[in-house]
Amino acid sequence: MKQIKIGLIGWGTVGAGVTRILRKNSALISRRLGARLRLARVADLNLRKDRGVKLAPGILTRDASRIVNDPEIDIVVELIGGLDPAGELVLAALRGGKRVVTANKALLAERGKHLFAEAARVRRRIFFEASVGGGIPIIKIIREGLAANRIKSILGIINGTTNYVLSRMSEEGITLAAAVRGAQLEGYAEKDPALDLEGVDSVHKLALLSSLAFGGWVDCSRIYREGIREITAEDIAFTERLGYRVKLLAIAKQTRDGADLRVHPTLVSRRHLLASVNGIYNAVYLEGDFSERQIFEGQGAGLGPTASAVVADLIEAGREILSGNESIPPFLAGNGDLRLAPTGDVACRHYLRIPALDRPGVLARIASILAEGGISIDSVIQRQKRKRGLVPVILMTHIAPEKDLRRAMDRISRLDVVRDRPVRIRVED
Amino acid sequence: MKQIKIGLIGWGTVGAGVTRILRKNSALISRRLGARLRLARVADLNLRKDRGVKLAPGILTRDASRIVNDPEIDIVVELIGGLDPAGELVLAALRGGKRVVTANKALLAERGKHLFAEAARVRRRIFFEASVGGGIPIIKIIREGLAANRIKSILGIINGTTNYVLSRMSEEGITLAAAVRGAQLEGYAEKDPALDLEGVDSVHKLALLSSLAFGGWVDCSRIYREGIREITAEDIAFTERLGYRVKLLAIAKQTRDGADLRVHPTLVSRRHLLASVNGIYNAVYLEGDFSERQIFEGQGAGLGPTASAVVADLIEAGREILSGNESIPPFLAGNGDLRLAPTGDVACRHYLRIPALDRPGVLARIASILAEGGISIDSVIQRQKRKRGLVPVILMTHIAPEKDLRRAMDRISRLDVVRDRPVRIRVED
Repeated sequence: MKQIKIGLIGWGTVGAGVTRILRKNSALISRRLGARLRLARVADLNLRKDRGVKLAPGILTRDASRIVNDPEIDIVVELIGGLDPAGELVLAALRGGKRVVTANKALLAERGKHLFAEAARVRRRIFFEASVGGGIPIIKIIREGLAANRIKSILGIINGTTNYVLSRMSEEGITLAAAVRGAQLEGYAEKDPALDLEGVDSVHKLALLSSLAFGGWVDCSRIYREGIREITAEDIAFTERLGYRVKLLAIAKQTRDGADLRVHPTLVSRRHLLASVNGIYNAVYLEGDFSERQIFEGQGAGLGPTASAVVADLIEAGREILSGNESIPPFLAGNGDLRLAPTGDVACRHYLRIPALDRPGVLARIASILAEGGISIDSVIQRQKRKRGLVPVILMTHIAPEKDLRRAMDRISRLDVVRDRPVRIRVED
Repeated sequence: MKQIKIGLIGWGTVGAGVTRILRKNSALISRRLGARLRLARVADLNLRKDRGVKLAPGILTRDASRIVNDPEIDIVVELIGGLDPAGELVLAALRGGKRVVTANKALLAERGKHLFAEAARVRRRIFFEASVGGGIPIIKIIREGLAANRIKSILGIINGTTNYVLSRMSEEGITLAAAVRGAQLEGYAEKDPALDLEGVDSVHKLALLSSLAFGGWVDCSRIYREGIREITAEDIAFTERLGYRVKLLAIAKQTRDGADLRVHPTLVSRRHLLASVNGIYNAVYLEGDFSERQIFEGQGAGLGPTASAVVADLIEAGREILSGNESIPPFLAGNGDLRLAPTGDVACRHYLRIPALDRPGVLARIASILAEGGISIDSVIQRQKRKRGLVPVILMTHIAPEKDLRRAMDRISRLDVVRDRPVRIRVED
């Protein structure tokens, strides 16, 4: 049986999962592929850490260049993450005639246009199923399964850490800080969880999904981004009473004015399919012009699911090698830039929480600013208990455009009775 | 731009959807594929019916052999359903060097082993995404997305008609007959809904899913099958009170003794991911040894979704033609037969409804038969209103094996106080 030689760069959690799958399911994979996937070399800076898997002697190295420059190796798996040196290693592997499998959403989102163009030039593909959605094969679903459709919208819960944090806040009524500590203890949040909590990771993944679905590259810095740091236990409690769950959504909608792309905390009705996606689960909701509404849900983090996506790519790359096919499907390579819709025109309902002094006339002043801005109020929640002399004014608006809300919130936050930063959460109906 | 010529056999609802997609999304598909999919010929027995799409003159024919024998045609789409003449047409197309795309689950489930062997012999593939799950790309998900996994279990709601009927019974408290009439009015049930209601359609689809996931062919007649005809509004009401929803599930589990395959009405907890899949939606829940639990949900019926799956296959077949690849992935071809687990050993909890005369001692007699059979009772539901002199005894058992239940139910149904067929619904925990 033919052998396909794999070089693995970065032997962390996902890397250890990949070695485990290749060992445990070796016979099964050989049967499905028609060839054997052989792990020829593994590079990691830390050679001592126990990964729970034993490798044959001589396979482990500290030197990644021994993988990208080894003419014997057919497929390079890049799992070190970050932009450098990952980017150089991927380019070196492609130029050396290797297929590349990567889980590196930051690299592909920031430098994908250049990397995919280079891959097309040398006629080698980059496979990146593991970069979004953990074990959910969402890349293949969009690229193959829904290829006949014009994708109208994508709503994704694509960051396991923030979803875990929001779920615990909702289930246990605890603060964000406490939920983040819990996530760190469980191994679901990094020591420095900023990239997750501030929505940067979701932006990277959204950029990849929308490039694929809408057929154009996106500059990540142009995607509207808002993390979950401002969400309080209070917000969770109030919005649940109104029938909503708070989720950090990655949103991509095709509009007449271009693609509307955003990442922000969002209220979804308790009855929405995404409302019941909890803990470390990820889900992607997709609407195509013929496929209609679909939802795909699975674990977005952890050793097994992400490694399962990496090995699925190894099998796909392996099939391509066996077939002798070197043509690049014209899906990402050669794409131009995506036209983005102006963010100010996006309209939706809003939940507002305005921490104000407990004085007569406060609500009237807030309401009149909203009215002057053309924003009508749907409902006001009864005033709550004082907290450091402040009582939040909580209300839901009717549908209003982003730019009007921004202007009104700016005026409201400058009121003398408003003593803390107002919170605004968009509603996805 | 290169053209790939399509011949379509069977211009019903799905066929009309295919022509609509090829027209509306033609530019998009050409860009994604790198070639143009051109509908060269359409065969249907009814040339007069308006399908809402206009074809160029000369394309429509009554003679399907003009498609399978046309050397110009690259891909044949078979959408007439049933075993004959669909089987002969598929074989003729393959032997004529064409790729085949089909939505025909009955044909593939009943004769797949032969058809796929023949396809492998002539080095042509059969694509069948549209045969299961409507627009959900579940075939590609199992074959490509989860290819690294040993699939441990599949639970599917894969028949839209029965799910629509059960959902309406649950939401409106109506009888099965009324819900079926409703489904017929909406176009979600055939005039003769037997294949759906009796679970035959689900068995066909389950056979395909398990062949793919477990790597062996299944003789459909050996899959345990029970439809939803016996389910009453009463059963729905009682089980909802216990926290369950009734679903017609297609179940495939890999056990030490072989594959456990069944189609039957099943109680799933209200909190189970499958419980909220309602109406004509389909969903497939899958557990892989590394991917863990995932669920894929979308519309299982209708013009758009199924046609979306057909055209996805056309694009995949088109890519294969462009790449010049004629190798057959060793996924289905060459499989042996799947080893099935003995059905009697399957154990689960059960809901029982036993229509009995309203006399003292009835419950005691039923309970003692269960006790003698080694089946312990978890709870008994308070007796309900009389109906034609009968009062149902309703209870939930603890986990007990199928064969013990069969024996006990047989004894119970022969009791003189039992005047109607007892109903048993398995619980999926």
